[in-house]
Amino acid sequence: MTGGTMKMLLFLFWGFLFSAVSQAQEIPTAPSRGQPWPMPMSYKAGGQLNTIDAATFRFATQGNDCDILREAYIRYREAAFKQHSERLLVVGPLRFRQNNLRFMQQLRGQENALLQQLSVQVSTPCEGRIYPSLESDESYALDVSGGQATLKAQEVWGALWGLETFVQLVYTTNSGEFVVNDTSITDKPRFVHRGMLLDTGRHFLPKRTLLQNLDAMAQNKLNVFHWHIVDDPSFPYESRAFPELSNKGSFYPGSHIYTPSDIQEIIEFARLRGIRVMAEFDTPGHARSWEEGQKGFLSECYSGGTRNGMYGPADPTKNSTFTFLKEFFTEVASVFPDQYIHVGGDEVNFTCWQSNPAVGDFMQKMGFGDNYAKLEEYYMQNLLDIINSLGRGYMIWQEVIDNGAKVREDTVVGVWKWRNFSWSDEMARMTEQGYKVVLSACWYLSRISYGEDWKTYYACDPYSFKGTDAQKSLVMGGELAMWGEYVDDTNVLPLSWPRGSAVAERLWSPQDVNSPVLAEPRLVEQRCRMVRRGIPAQPISGAGGCPEEFGGN
Amino acid sequence: MTGGTMKMLLFLFWGFLFSAVSQAQEIPTAPSRGQPWPMPMSYKAGGQLNTIDAATFRFATQGNDCDILREAYIRYREAAFKQHSERLLVVGPLRFRQNNLRFMQQLRGQENALLQQLSVQVSTPCEGRIYPSLESDESYALDVSGGQATLKAQEVWGALWGLETFVQLVYTTNSGEFVVNDTSITDKPRFVHRGMLLDTGRHFLPKRTLLQNLDAMAQNKLNVFHWHIVDDPSFPYESRAFPELSNKGSFYPGSHIYTPSDIQEIIEFARLRGIRVMAEFDTPGHARSWEEGQKGFLSECYSGGTRNGMYGPADPTKNSTFTFLKEFFTEVASVFPDQYIHVGGDEVNFTCWQSNPAVGDFMQKMGFGDNYAKLEEYYMQNLLDIINSLGRGYMIWQEVIDNGAKVREDTVVGVWKWRNFSWSDEMARMTEQGYKVVLSACWYLSRISYGEDWKTYYACDPYSFKGTDAQKSLVMGGELAMWGEYVDDTNVLPLSWPRGSAVAERLWSPQDVNSPVLAEPRLVEQRCRMVRRGIPAQPISGAGGCPEEFGGN
Repeated sequence: MTGGTMKMLLFLFWGFLFSAVSQAQEIPTAPSRGQPWPMPMSYKAGGQLNTIDAATFRFATQGNDCDILREAYIRYREAAFKQHSERLLVVGPLRFRQNNLRFMQQLRGQENALLQQLSVQVSTPCEGRIYPSLESDESYALDVSGGQATLKAQEVWGALWGLETFVQLVYTTNSGEFVVNDTSITDKPRFVHRGMLLDTGRHFLPKRTLLQNLDAMAQNKLNVFHWHIVDDPSFPYESRAFPELSNKGSFYPGSHIYTPSDIQEIIEFARLRGIRVMAEFDTPGHARSWEEGQKGFLSECYSGGTRNGMYGPADPTKNSTFTFLKEFFTEVASVFPDQYIHVGGDEVNFTCWQSNPAVGDFMQKMGFGDNYAKLEEYYMQNLLDIINSLGRGYMIWQEVIDNGAKVREDTVVGVWKWRNFSWSDEMARMTEQGYKVVLSACWYLSRISYGEDWKTYYACDPYSFKGTDAQKSLVMGGELAMWGEYVDDTNVLPLSWPRGSAVAERLWSPQDVNSPVLAEPRLVEQRCRMVRRGIPAQPISGAGGCPEEFGGN
Repeated sequence: MTGGTMKMLLFLFWGFLFSAVSQAQEIPTAPSRGQPWPMPMSYKAGGQLNTIDAATFRFATQGNDCDILREAYIRYREAAFKQHSERLLVVGPLRFRQNNLRFMQQLRGQENALLQQLSVQVSTPCEGRIYPSLESDESYALDVSGGQATLKAQEVWGALWGLETFVQLVYTTNSGEFVVNDTSITDKPRFVHRGMLLDTGRHFLPKRTLLQNLDAMAQNKLNVFHWHIVDDPSFPYESRAFPELSNKGSFYPGSHIYTPSDIQEIIEFARLRGIRVMAEFDTPGHARSWEEGQKGFLSECYSGGTRNGMYGPADPTKNSTFTFLKEFFTEVASVFPDQYIHVGGDEVNFTCWQSNPAVGDFMQKMGFGDNYAKLEEYYMQNLLDIINSLGRGYMIWQEVIDNGAKVREDTVVGVWKWRNFSWSDEMARMTEQGYKVVLSACWYLSRISYGEDWKTYYACDPYSFKGTDAQKSLVMGGELAMWGEYVDDTNVLPLSWPRGSAVAERLWSPQDVNSPVLAEPRLVEQRCRMVRRGIPAQPISGAGGCPEEFGGN
């Protein structure tokens, strides 16, 4: 029996169970038990169970060892065993678990083996402060069989994902035993860029919330924290070179800022979980808050020939603008080790530039005529050259290319627009020009709607555009976007999870893992697993409950 | 100057400040400072400030004293003073506060008085275990002037709301002083029934979350917790007489139930805050979970002449149904002291009854012909007679009347339907027949949508239907409904608040307090006040921040 056939049979089996459940609308979808999310590339689960004694089980490094592994063992021991409450395991007849009980009984016809350790083998040395990157090898192989378990990975990044998967396979029987099915997994992600955007410019997100969210990302194998750190409303990034930016541009400078040590802690927390932290400092638009602490950075707007007190995009007519940017981004590059810096470039409104006489003069001088897109291109080109000179790659929003700026070959373009035209056309257009792309257009999770919208996110595939194989190969992946208009630490986690898990599976798993019906029981399990591990992931279906609710029972 | 004129001037003043702010879209709406929510019936705020020394300030009962007052003083002392963090009061220039600073400076041109106590005078004795009811006098008068402050109320319920208002008037200056403006308030609610429905049948809400939510309700002067406690998916109510109902009908009987002592604690917590707890046990529909622990309660459904394993509404053909209901609701009446019990009656699907031969026979015998609404009426009438015999009033959903059942004169009808026809027509129809009504149709907060939907809730008025004054006088008020399909303790509080605050002001304040532009700064303040007092109330506008964020900074 091939792995594919086996997988298919398993799917059919689960599909049968749960279609039977969903006929009776009053009965909530039964969660799967010990099934991974996102679905691995190849996943075979056999009929035999391995019992684990939580007190003596250990992760055993074979060969290359490092801090990343050691820290992960501590986290994953807790994730697997610590939060299960004894009391909850002694359950009576559960209305929506009956089908699972059937499954369990079938499995438990055989003798269980005792699983005493997971052997972890990483081929490449991982000591020292190494960071995940677009080139990371995230693959791993995980085998559990007859009381033996082995996790093999080329790099430590793959081992981290393998550990996450292993812990997801651990579940509890009704009598309270920890068990793992015999399982054979070969896994690697479909896309190298699996990101999540958080916006700390519109509402502040405390460091604690950002760290919690990194944990949630790791639970879903997302590997890029796209940190849209500042925006029009506030500038919480504390710059050493330009402290006035946050002193004057943050909502509350005594509390609503990210200090250099906060940021270092966040980056390290992410690194230990195989997650890149890509900072976005969006200019020339979306930069209102910069002006507070960096007077003269923005263009002043005019009404009837006089200044009206309003500000537009960054002022590209002054040398001081680029002197400042050079110094500012030199610091940014020293603070954020990631190979990419996101420089924004979206939604540049020309109205203010058009009103400003000095900008008009500059347009004349440069021979741009009335074409303000040329002025925007001029600004971006200068900025990109600065980033380039710092040895970093850049990510930008699609408008920069739409407006014709020349950018480095390894530039990654974020495709986000979904109004008036389809994002598929944009994906085709960008890749035709040879640019790498990251899709977020169909994953604006902050734009909430009623009901099971995770299915919409789950259905969106980054390859859904007309293009050659070469074009498809330029798709780096995608990002779920949690913009901050109506989001802060009171609601960011429940809004993001497990809706974001749907995106995560799309970005990780094979393209044909796309049935919401088959996914739902696993997603229900993943949701409750996240809740048990401390993430307030909200419910996805019309009714149900987790054995351990977030707020305690 | 009359109070109305004064109020209008104050409104204009604030309106001017904030319209200036909202022109610049990047700058978040500035919160008001020390302004009450919901807006009192009459509210005059003068120009002089009273300073409070938190260490020595006290609430001083004059005359009638009782546990409700004493407990309230403890809570309100903490709400007013304890959670303000010193560190946060030392603020630099805040982008969205500039207009407030102007306001402060203007006020502080005069000498401050020192306010040492709030004198609290309740006319009616309040000792003993008294409960709020539809007949409670909730009015109060609050005066703060020149270092003197007095709160007068007929009943303790009004005093509770007055204490809430007083604490809302307390704010901090930029130098960290607690202050209150000279203020004169005469206040009483527009509607006597200001409710919030929570649904613990679709997803379980831990007791802790229900208590937190009662605190949030009190902060918005809502006075009825409509507890939709069980539904199709689960039966978390632990019955002493019928323990199998929750043993078999709850999601997890070891943890996902409300024990008698849990319920007692919730009722007492509510009572101390002037909030009624009205339990809803919805039948004959929405009762799937009852069948698990009370076999034979529901009608069995048939396909092709044989039982198909599905269940429909409660079975009205058996005497045992009503024997059980009598015993069950006798217990309910002993557990829930409120004068009203909600017995549901919504969305009764006739398909199953139609398929069941025994039901067919009963229809013949009773002479109902093919009219299953008659059968539903028969069921409801029997149930209502039981409640009546227990000396309780009942609240029901509109369908019961729509279907023609005769009910007691003091019945309160919940108007909730908004599909296919307008709720205004239903309000007119119900009040024409002389029934008291409670509106929730336009306040389904669980049906989320993107953006500032609080304005929609704020705009809905229970008097928006064609009817005589006599009809209007039958409007008891309304309820915001937080149904549980996609809601549990991970998200119920941020989803409910401050969107529910919009409903609360509509139900409390004069009908002409209805400008969202004027309301917004106060609602932003109320939101941050709730956050500071421990409720994760989510942001309502496109950007901003609270001095003290929920998760810490």
